[in-house]
Amino acid sequence: MNDVKACSKASLAEMKVSLEKEYEAFRARGLNLDMSRGKPAPSQLDLSGELLEKKLDSHVSEDGTDVRNYGGPLGIPEARKLFSELLGIPFERIIIGGNSSLNLMYDTLVRHMLFGTHGNRPWGKLDKVRFLCPAPGYDRHFAISEELGMEMIPVPMTPEGPDMDFVEGIVMSDESVKGIWCVPLYSNPQGICYSDETVGRLAAMKTAAPDFRIMWDNAYGVHHIYGERHLRDIFQACDEAGNPDRPYYFFSTSKITLPGAGISLLATSPGNLEEVKKHMGIQIICYDKVNQLRTVRFLKNAEGVRAQMRRMADELRPKFDIVLNTLERELGGSGLAFWQKPQGGYFVAVDTLPGCARRTVELAKQAGVKMTGAGATFPYHRDPADSNIRIAPTYPSAEELKTAIELFCLCVKLAGVEKLLQEKA
Amino acid sequence: MNDVKACSKASLAEMKVSLEKEYEAFRARGLNLDMSRGKPAPSQLDLSGELLEKKLDSHVSEDGTDVRNYGGPLGIPEARKLFSELLGIPFERIIIGGNSSLNLMYDTLVRHMLFGTHGNRPWGKLDKVRFLCPAPGYDRHFAISEELGMEMIPVPMTPEGPDMDFVEGIVMSDESVKGIWCVPLYSNPQGICYSDETVGRLAAMKTAAPDFRIMWDNAYGVHHIYGERHLRDIFQACDEAGNPDRPYYFFSTSKITLPGAGISLLATSPGNLEEVKKHMGIQIICYDKVNQLRTVRFLKNAEGVRAQMRRMADELRPKFDIVLNTLERELGGSGLAFWQKPQGGYFVAVDTLPGCARRTVELAKQAGVKMTGAGATFPYHRDPADSNIRIAPTYPSAEELKTAIELFCLCVKLAGVEKLLQEKA
Repeated sequence: MNDVKACSKASLAEMKVSLEKEYEAFRARGLNLDMSRGKPAPSQLDLSGELLEKKLDSHVSEDGTDVRNYGGPLGIPEARKLFSELLGIPFERIIIGGNSSLNLMYDTLVRHMLFGTHGNRPWGKLDKVRFLCPAPGYDRHFAISEELGMEMIPVPMTPEGPDMDFVEGIVMSDESVKGIWCVPLYSNPQGICYSDETVGRLAAMKTAAPDFRIMWDNAYGVHHIYGERHLRDIFQACDEAGNPDRPYYFFSTSKITLPGAGISLLATSPGNLEEVKKHMGIQIICYDKVNQLRTVRFLKNAEGVRAQMRRMADELRPKFDIVLNTLERELGGSGLAFWQKPQGGYFVAVDTLPGCARRTVELAKQAGVKMTGAGATFPYHRDPADSNIRIAPTYPSAEELKTAIELFCLCVKLAGVEKLLQEKA
Repeated sequence: MNDVKACSKASLAEMKVSLEKEYEAFRARGLNLDMSRGKPAPSQLDLSGELLEKKLDSHVSEDGTDVRNYGGPLGIPEARKLFSELLGIPFERIIIGGNSSLNLMYDTLVRHMLFGTHGNRPWGKLDKVRFLCPAPGYDRHFAISEELGMEMIPVPMTPEGPDMDFVEGIVMSDESVKGIWCVPLYSNPQGICYSDETVGRLAAMKTAAPDFRIMWDNAYGVHHIYGERHLRDIFQACDEAGNPDRPYYFFSTSKITLPGAGISLLATSPGNLEEVKKHMGIQIICYDKVNQLRTVRFLKNAEGVRAQMRRMADELRPKFDIVLNTLERELGGSGLAFWQKPQGGYFVAVDTLPGCARRTVELAKQAGVKMTGAGATFPYHRDPADSNIRIAPTYPSAEELKTAIELFCLCVKLAGVEKLLQEKA
């Protein structure tokens, strides 16, 4: 497809008529499809059928703990070992949580609000707390910051991760900037992987706030689809830079086994961990060790997780193929849309022409295809360019997805042509 | 046994020699027993073996939700129904949480600290927050208040519940008093059941704080052992008194099925629930619905829970018999100890002569029997009378318990006689 932006007004008008005709044909089909939900399809969940079907042979963990009873606030050792091996995190730094890593993130920031850390003032006692939000990003991260009254600062994304010149500039000069949200591998929604340099700069940068924290949500750390991208060790980088207490690392099996019935992980420096243990010990006696044991018995070890994720990739690859191939075929070279080709993760993000995202999503909706709301991936739901749209290919069937993404491309084109015509008017 | 307090100095001295001889005989046995842990014995956990052994036949809840996937933040309807039926709480008021009701309590108070409720100032922004702590009470309740920087006010307990004259007096005059901890049925540790009048007065009392809250932890709501005590409906009482938003109700299956692998409940007024849902929706996507479904499939319905608790009572009754019969036989009429005879719950609390609790616990420890620390059941671990000791009969075997409680009674006597001799010196 040639660059539509170069077309004359007359040919744009012609194009619009033809696109509208196509669009009406879609509308007439009365579709009811959904590309908004970042949740696994039933076929993905079936890969973990054993978790529901197999009985738990023994209820004793390897350190002799009866997992049915109270105790073991850090989680059973075999779970901590599995993740230590899988993610390369020292065993001692790991706590296994409940079914939600989001909840662990929320609780972590709440503790900073209420109690502060390492003798610094509780954030809740400060006039202003600002938080860096690489955008587009994960709406639920931003929702936590917003809920806690933090001022969110959008950080532009580059193909290497957050724009580190921007980040370094602001953290060095502004003590109220207390942290940054990161999805370092296959970022939500763009699928961007942080480069070694980005990780190194995040670890080593001078921050005006002594209690600056990196919320390292490695949600897609093993969610490779087309290849295997490497991620630099954040702990090692921070330790080497003399900032050991900077990172809080989060992970979960929600998108490895069953969302809502998985287990989660928090890892951090020994110094931070002492604080976490103290406060967590007031909040809860122990997380669900039965589910921890079930999960470990099912996944077995790091290689077991990788095997599970290869099966998962086989489920997801055809869907990502559909999305990426259709985008390329329908929009490649058109100048109407831009996207990164993710190598893993859960999403594809498309940037329309500026000012076209809301219109595109609305057009899709009118034709029966639900997309994630335009702007949802930005702090305060405000996409300054009104350009970014998140596509979630996992939940619909391949057939549904094919139709939905075709309609989506049509809507991108129609909204783009409408926009170009307005501009020429 | 006759009242030891009436004995002469000479006969006390004689008694001391004889008790010391008995005590040394116990010490020589090199015991290693534990009556400190309020956790179920393995035989109690075996009553829920099916939870581990039976496969989950279907993963669809009655409203068609695939429990394996994200969604359903309020919990699956069959779980909400079961507890509605069991506890007489309207279905709409119920949220099913994760494996820990303690965590729900912590989160509830954290929300009041950070966000406030119904337009009132967040408690964290106030100079002082005071909280009523009926004492002796549950140490983990008090630990939450302490962690959140609340000033804890001990409230004397009566056989009808907290001393309501005291409570009414202070809540009426002091706006900084924001709530009260209650374990209304078979209280921890005394096993006291709140009378209808107590519940009515808690519901209807005038409070200076518009956002005064009752933390209604009905942890032992179905944990009858010798009979079945009734508890007045706190919601109805508060609704009738025009204070619908006052109570937060908590419950869990931790001591019905498996501690740490059960499910929990929060129930409150429709107005409060809107706030909870809003904040909880930021904190977590959903709790573990697979475990909810497993639990409901196992317990079936309210009658299923009651049947399970009858089996549980059959496990616990012999142990409570041992404790209560031994106390009566060894200490009844001695004037050296006083206790309520609980009809259910998890504990027996013994009051020694003033100033004897720490010494008693120390003596027991020196002879190889671990008790809950003296003072642990009071705010700040300070029992002003140094008198209350909590006995947890559930975890040891009957045989262990028999030995441990005999030694305990001996220690109560020895400490008491030592004290009386000092006073006469």
